[in-house]
Order: sequence, then structure tokens, then C-alpha cells
Amino acid sequence: MKTILSCALSGVAANRAQCPGIPYTPEEYGEESRRAADAGASIVHIHARKPDGVPSQDVEDYLAIRDAIKKRVPEMIINFSTGAIGFTPEQRIASVVHGKPDVAALNMGTMNYAKYSEKRKDFVFKFVFENPFDDIIYYLKTMREVGVRPEMECFDMGHVGSALPLIDMGILTPPYEFSFILGVDGGMPASTRNVLAMADNLPKDSSWQVIGIGREQWGLAAAALTMGGHIRVGFEDNFYLPEGTMAKSNGDLCERAARLSRDTGREVASIKEAREMLHLPLRAA
Amino acid sequence: MKTILSCALSGVAANRAQCPGIPYTPEEYGEESRRAADAGASIVHIHARKPDGVPSQDVEDYLAIRDAIKKRVPEMIINFSTGAIGFTPEQRIASVVHGKPDVAALNMGTMNYAKYSEKRKDFVFKFVFENPFDDIIYYLKTMREVGVRPEMECFDMGHVGSALPLIDMGILTPPYEFSFILGVDGGMPASTRNVLAMADNLPKDSSWQVIGIGREQWGLAAAALTMGGHIRVGFEDNFYLPEGTMAKSNGDLCERAARLSRDTGREVASIKEAREMLHLPLRAA
Amino acid sequence: MKTILSCALSGVAANRAQCPGIPYTPEEYGEESRRAADAGASIVHIHARKPDGVPSQDVEDYLAIRDAIKKRVPEMIINFSTGAIGFTPEQRIASVVHGKPDVAALNMGTMNYAKYSEKRKDFVFKFVFENPFDDIIYYLKTMREVGVRPEMECFDMGHVGSALPLIDMGILTPPYEFSFILGVDGGMPASTRNVLAMADNLPKDSSWQVIGIGREQWGLAAAALTMGGHIRVGFEDNFYLPEGTMAKSNGDLCERAARLSRDTGREVASIKEAREMLHLPLRAA
Amino acid sequence: MKTILSCALSGVAANRAQCPGIPYTPEEYGEESRRAADAGASIVHIHARKPDGVPSQDVEDYLAIRDAIKKRVPEMIINFSTGAIGFTPEQRIASVVHGKPDVAALNMGTMNYAKYSEKRKDFVFKFVFENPFDDIIYYLKTMREVGVRPEMECFDMGHVGSALPLIDMGILTPPYEFSFILGVDGGMPASTRNVLAMADNLPKDSSWQVIGIGREQWGLAAAALTMGGHIRVGFEDNFYLPEGTMAKSNGDLCERAARLSRDTGREVASIKEAREMLHLPLRAA
Repeated sequence: MKTILSCALSGVAANRAQCPGIPYTPEEYGEESRRAADAGASIVHIHARKPDGVPSQDVEDYLAIRDAIKKRVPEMIINFSTGAIGFTPEQRIASVVHGKPDVAALNMGTMNYAKYSEKRKDFVFKFVFENPFDDIIYYLKTMREVGVRPEMECFDMGHVGSALPLIDMGILTPPYEFSFILGVDGGMPASTRNVLAMADNLPKDSSWQVIGIGREQWGLAAAALTMGGHIRVGFEDNFYLPEGTMAKSNGDLCERAARLSRDTGREVASIKEAREMLHLPLRAA
Repeated sequence: MKTILSCALSGVAANRAQCPGIPYTPEEYGEESRRAADAGASIVHIHARKPDGVPSQDVEDYLAIRDAIKKRVPEMIINFSTGAIGFTPEQRIASVVHGKPDVAALNMGTMNYAKYSEKRKDFVFKFVFENPFDDIIYYLKTMREVGVRPEMECFDMGHVGSALPLIDMGILTPPYEFSFILGVDGGMPASTRNVLAMADNLPKDSSWQVIGIGREQWGLAAAALTMGGHIRVGFEDNFYLPEGTMAKSNGDLCERAARLSRDTGREVASIKEAREMLHLPLRAA
Repeated sequence: MKTILSCALSGVAANRAQCPGIPYTPEEYGEESRRAADAGASIVHIHARKPDGVPSQDVEDYLAIRDAIKKRVPEMIINFSTGAIGFTPEQRIASVVHGKPDVAALNMGTMNYAKYSEKRKDFVFKFVFENPFDDIIYYLKTMREVGVRPEMECFDMGHVGSALPLIDMGILTPPYEFSFILGVDGGMPASTRNVLAMADNLPKDSSWQVIGIGREQWGLAAAALTMGGHIRVGFEDNFYLPEGTMAKSNGDLCERAARLSRDTGREVASIKEAREMLHLPLRAA
Repeated sequence: MKTILSCALSGVAANRAQCPGIPYTPEEYGEESRRAADAGASIVHIHARKPDGVPSQDVEDYLAIRDAIKKRVPEMIINFSTGAIGFTPEQRIASVVHGKPDVAALNMGTMNYAKYSEKRKDFVFKFVFENPFDDIIYYLKTMREVGVRPEMECFDMGHVGSALPLIDMGILTPPYEFSFILGVDGGMPASTRNVLAMADNLPKDSSWQVIGIGREQWGLAAAALTMGGHIRVGFEDNFYLPEGTMAKSNGDLCERAARLSRDTGREVASIKEAREMLHLPLRAA
């Protein structure tokens, strides 16, 4: 099976002081998408920013970014995040309603979300990340109304299991797209064993990718590649190439991810192939 | 390895209208403990109630129940819950500080806690169960001060993994006791595969038991028995014997659990043996 | 799912000096089958003996035993072994050709077959158990011709995998019946983890049971019960009840296996139900 | 943990008509070893050949090859095969006794060894590969006498388990080196799941590598890299780079394996580091 390569261009947590390659303006998002596509990515995952780099939930910013991408890579599969903190569910999903991306990501569970530093012997941050079932149901129903495919982000096994009642209620329908995020303290520990365990809990008609946080990303991606999973890279998740040097662009990260995929024996899907594999036809403009 | 059998006598969610065997008064807790001990239990897990059956976090209720148990089964390993909703951390742990049980249970993570009914095609309940790292750290530090062993209740894989930073910080020290609770919607789905996956994520020097919710309990207990895990039964988790008849007492449930253990080839530990296995010497009165 | 309980009445390795309950004469096989059926078994697995107890590959002995069973339990699912050592493939399968049992067991691989004693610090026995692909293919083709369902006995993971080329060649057709035998030195080590690993390697449309050798049987059976597997007991595999006392009859062993199944929450299938589950209609006489 | 990269230079099954890079003469073995070492390999696994390419079990050929390697890469860890068919155990181990390599590989079990072709709908070859316990014990005792470390080649799970009685008898002593070979028909099917299952069955103090047969090698190697395993490549196992082009030399294969290791986040061990990790000090000449 070919590998679908996804790129999370920007995120919200970091800025250019930390990593100069992060895109801020719609044009930069567009150029980064082009570089990602050239290197093999068929999906871009978007957290919007204002042109000065401040993270934004404003619909207009999402639309401007979307259009800048479409202008450069018209077929690109566009995936909007809904994972903002400090906003109402309506605010979090407004860009999806108005921007109609192909896919929108939503968090499938509530958890302690933390980062621990062995060096400092302390937590760098720790907070409760709330995604109650009521919100999940609201997002899913809204996405169905506007015809946007949900990408279910699972930070723990219970998040995968939470799809089952929603399927039984008819709120979720196949094909299902899952992302497994490993390595957050409070969530699924990062290991090949745990990637396999998550895949073993999926409902039928599911495709999945692994999202690794930080440098463990590369090992987790390799693990997923050997199990029929797809992979995501990009500045949202990790700035660094496996050898420890900071990537200059999302294209660098995608290039390495594509090489890794090929070196495990899997070719990288073109955007067209990815759309077919995911049953996501290109919409009429 | 012998099996340590634990009994959760009462819980807080149910009442005698639903299950007549649930103990309310200290004397009833004491008698149920005796029945559980006669059937092979070496640990009783306590959620206190007022003598009229209303769940209680009052220290005096915990003390009265503890004393009624000790009077009948002096060596019994006593385990207090801290898992109340609607109380401050100080209130939740007061009975532990003053009652000094051998063990106190604490929840190792935050999650969506729900129950879905396939029949109704709807959730029976769903809420956010918050146990942030700050609270966990507060409980663990308090338990260390008063010399009470924590039992780490894990409803998902990330809850198991959350022990690691706490061990690295020195807040948790071996030997570790873990409980895996499977079958809550929003948490770890109930399967033998997932019990094994949780055990595979444990740190060294850990013992563990499985807690199954509802009738899936019996299969999960059997699975744990075949992997070196221990087991818990009792009215808090499940009213029913495997064939579907309601148990008359916690003793009935313990008797069946002990039979199941023996039928898988594992004898049941006496209280004395359980104390040795867990490194929990009987305290001077 | 209900549990299909199978009973291996006699085996070839042991005799009545070691275990007085082992049947020798056709009448004894018949009576043991009745006891097994009364206790819940729906399949009996037969290695024939001469009436004086000497293991036999003679067709007439198989027929006499078959008829003695059918006389007492007409619906019983009858399963003949082909696993003899020191006979040609034609001799090993003659009783299947002439006796037309519902099912015939065959070994799916070659291996070192040994028993090690920790007490003696030596092997009790060790030999090469040869079942080359050519023989397997011959057995399978012959069984197809005479309309007998193969039960594929797998002592290691590669034996499970060996079904795949045979399926691809059209020599094996669904539904597939597998037995996993764990605990032979040289074969799959006995553990819940390994039972799960074997089940994870099955082709679609497979049902499976676990066969445990010696007293580990009970734990392995419990593990299988929690994963949707079926179970086999009987004097061929183990003489002892879980508590260590020798069983007086195959009925005792079946009774305990049935109790174990029920205690894990699974009812035991009647013969009629087992025939439906396995798609094995009763043949016209 | 750094990755120990091993290279199986030549094998016995193929010749230069099929793959021009295969070394025949001692000098060619030496040059291929140098290329492998330059690309990151720290171990070479040797099946000897006559200078005209015919596979050989003659001690003199092993010695000539060993010396040609040592001349070019003096610190290289040298591993001799004992896996020949059609020779007595004494003949199979003679080169180990006289050549005293650092390590010698031995097969830990008996099996059906076959290759099936989906295209032809038939087996390409199929035979019984006999490695009875008596031979294994003989090899291990001989290796202990001459101070050569055994590398236990396991083609199935039972082969891993077969180490346990030998450890209990004191014939095997730590540290243990295991190789998992997946993908032979009759042996362990090739999957990440099965690599993990094999690693889960190892005794303590074990290091392990994966050997993949054919092009599945690259995916299996990637899987092992994400689980702390080491990897082997080389013309014995596979001629092709992941993209399907035939490698020109063992160095090409090692270079790609080293890149794969680094791209999963693991550096490649130098020969010196590999010797330390494996507790294999360089012998005085």
C-alpha cells in the first residue's frame, strides 16, 4: 500500500524565534504547501495565524490561507484543525463551516495534557484538555451537515474506543480516518507496541496515521509505515530532522518522511492517489 | 503465583433498591468484609456511606467502617477510595490522612467518563472526570507523609504512563500497585488484548489487578488471572454472577472469583500471604 | 459467543497404570463420550486403541469406536486423529477415508517435539516430528475427496502461516478450523500473549480452539475463553483437574471446563449449536 | 540505543549469474567486508565458498576468508554460519573450531522450509530443515569449549522458546544473541506484529536482530529499529534496494540500512561500540 503523507505546516505553540521556517502569512502557507507537495505530501493540516504570526481562529484567516494553498496546489487535500483552547465549540468549528476543507480534525477525548522534562525534573506544562462527548457530537454533526470528513485525533486508547458509540448512533459513518498521537505525557506513551495496540482497536473501514510529537516522531513514523499506517510530519509536531538539525522548511521534513517511506518499501501516494484511497474526490470550485 | 483477591464492598452509584446486598452501616460493612474474607478476599476497597446509605466523604464514617471491619477481620488489608466527585482534594483525602488505611486508591488521569446503551442508542450518562496532575501529585505527597500506599487506578493507557514522570520526580517509589479499569466509555475498551497492552506498559516492581465494570468483569478477571494479574470483584463494580443472577452478598462474588482463580490453576492468597506479596506489613494498632 | 467444548478421550502416550480413566474398548470410548457430552462436550477427538489398550491405526478399531459413540450420542461431532508416528501417510489417513468422521485433525508443520524437566535438568524425550508440506497436501486433498473437514493443529506460528499457501492453491477452503497447541518444548511457549499472537495470524473465516498440554491447560483454556476461542480437554492432553487431583473420567474434565467457560461469562454450546457454528451438518447415516 | 549493523556477505543459494556482486574469492570477501564496514557494518556473517563460487564447508576456505577480512578490517566481528545441509554436525562446526570466529550462527529448530510463489500457484521449493535438539546441544557445547559466542537463529517462536531448557541446563549462558528470521514459508510469517511477539518471548540479557528474506527485509528492518532490535542485510538475504534495483555490492545494502537506521532516529554503532554492546572484546591475534 502506498503511504499518504500529511504535513502540519504551522501549529500554534511555536514561533519563528524558535523555528524560522514556520509560515505566518497566507503566501507563506501557500509556499510551504507547495514545498510539501513537491516532496510528496498530499494533505496539509492547518492551524491559522494572523499575518504577524499570532494564532487565529478567525474564519477570514482560514479562508485566506486555504485560497493561497489552492492557488499553488489546486488538488491539495486541505485539513483544518478545530483543536483550539479558549474558544467556544462554535468558534472552533466556524472555519470548517465556512471554509469547507476536505477534512477537519477533532479531538476524540479529554485528558491531562502535559510535557515532562527529565532534565528539569519537573513538568514544562500541564493542563486539562477538555473535549467532552457533547462537543465531539456537536462537531461531528456539524461536519456532516457541511460535508467535511472528520479526522479523529486520538491521544489515548479510550479516544479510539469513543468512536464506537458514535458509530452505533449513526453520527459517524465509514470510511473512518484516525490519527494516533503518541508521546504526550498524560496520553498514550510512545512505542511501536502502543501504535500496534491502537491499530488493533480500530473499527473496520478505518485508515490511520501516526502523529509523533518531538523527535520520537521518526521512530513512530517508521513503525506506522511497517503496519500499513500513514504518517504526518511538519513544524506543528517537530522541527528537527532525525539527525537533530532543524529543518529549514516543511518541505525538508516531508522529503525525509518520503525517503523513510520508500526505504521501508512503500512508495508515496500522489495527491490524486491519496484522494482515491481516502474516498475524497476533489470538489468543484 | 497466588492470586490476591480484592473486594469493593459498596461503591457510591447504586443503592439497595437496585441491589439489596449493598452494605450501608458500619456493621454491614464489617459483616460483608467477613464474608469476603471467608471466601478468599484479602483486601476490601471502601467508599463510605452514612448508615442510611447516602455516600459520604466524612472522616467519621470512614473510621467507623474501618473499625467495624478490623473488629471482625483484624488482618484485612483496608483500601480507602479518594475518587469522589464534587469535593475538594483536601476533602477527598481527609479520610486517608485520619484513617490511615493500608492502601488508598487514586485516579491517575482525566477522561470522558460515560456509559453508552446500545439498546437506547444513547448515552446513559457522560461527564468529564477531572484528575489533573496537580491533584495527583497532592494526593501522592500526602499519602507518603502518612505512610499509606497508593493504588493507582488507570482507566486508560495514558494513566499508566502518567506514573513515569512521578517516579522520575521521586514522588512515587516502588513497589507500585496498579489497577486497570476497562470498559468505561471514554476509557480503555474491555478486551484481553487491552489488558495485556496495559500490563506491557507498567514500570518494573509493579503488581496489578483488573477491575471490570459490569458483567464483562468475569472475562476480564479470567484474562488477568492468566497473565499474573490480580482481580477485584464486589458490588461497586458489578452485582451479577457470571450466569446473570444477582449476588446476595459480596461473599458470593468473592467465592465465585476464588473459584475462577483456582480453575485457572492459581490458588488464592491468604491475607497474610497478600501482605507479604505486597510488602504491606500489618500495622501496630 | 458460546463455547464449543472438545474432548480428546484417550491419546496414545499414556495408559491405565498412569490414569485409570482412559478408555480402551469401544464400549469404554462410548461411555466416556456420553459422560463428556453430558458435561457439555460436542466434539470427541479419537486416537484408536485395541481393546487391550494398545494404540492402533487399524481402520476396524476406528470404526468400532465410532459406532460405539454414535450408538450412545448419535449427534456427537466425531474427530479422528491422523497424528501417528511410524506409519505411512496412507496408513495415517485410512481411518478417515473409511470412517468418514466429521472432522480429522492434521499437523501443520515439522518441529522438534520435546519435553524438558526442570527437576531432572534434562529432556524427558526429544524427537523430530516430521509433517512435510507434501504430506499435509496429501491429507488435505484426501479429506476433500471424502468430505471430511480438516482441523489444522498448529504447534508453532509457522504452522498457522502454512495455511496461507494452501489456501492460495485452493487446497484449503473456508471455513477453517484451527487448533493451537502450546507448551511443547520446541513449539510455541505457553502464554496468554502467545495465544493472542496465534489468533492474530489467522486467516478470515477461521474458528479456533486452544489445546494445552499438562496442567498449564487450564490457564490457556481460560485465556482462549476470553478471546473468543474454543477449548479442548481430555485425557490425551492432561489427567488433572486444576487443583491437582487426577480426574476419574473425561466427564470430570469436561465438567470443569464447562464451569470455567460459564464463569468467564460464556455458555457452552450444545452439539446442535456447535454443528451450526462450525457449519457441520449431521450426516445421513 | 545505537544500531548494530550486520552483513551476510554471500550465502549459498545464489550465484553471480543472479547477482554479480556476490563475493567468491577470499579477496572479494575481504573487499566486500571493507565496503560493508565503510557503510557502517560491524559484523560480517560468512558462508564460505571455493574461489570459483561453489559453497564450501572446508575449514581452509573459512580460514582464508577470515584472514582476508581481518587484513582489511582487523576489528571486524566475524560470524561463521553452521547452517549447511548435507553435512554431519562435525563438518558443520569444524570451521568454528578451527577458525574461532567471534560468533557462530546456529539454527534453533526443525521446520518445514519452503518458498511459495503466488504467481506460479505452487511452491518453488519445500524441504524439511532438521536441527534436532541433540545437534543444537552438540554445537553449543563445542562453541563453549572453543570460546565462540552462539548466535541463535530462530525461524519460529518455538525456536526462541527452545533456548529456555538449554539455559536451565547451563549449556547456554548470558549474554544471549538472537536472530529472528521471518518470511520463510513454514516459519514465522513476516509482520511487525510477529517481530514484537518474538522479542516478547526472549529471556533476559538478550540482544536481537531481524533477518528478513527478500524484499520484505526493509520493512522488517524498520520495525526492528523501532523496537530496540538490530538489523542484518547482505546478499545472502536479499539483492535489492527498497526501490527494487539490484545492489552492486554489500556496501550499497549496508549504506541503505544505515540510512534507514539514522532516519528512524538511531545512530549506527562503530565496530568498537558493537563489541562493547555485545561484550565481545577483540581477541589477541
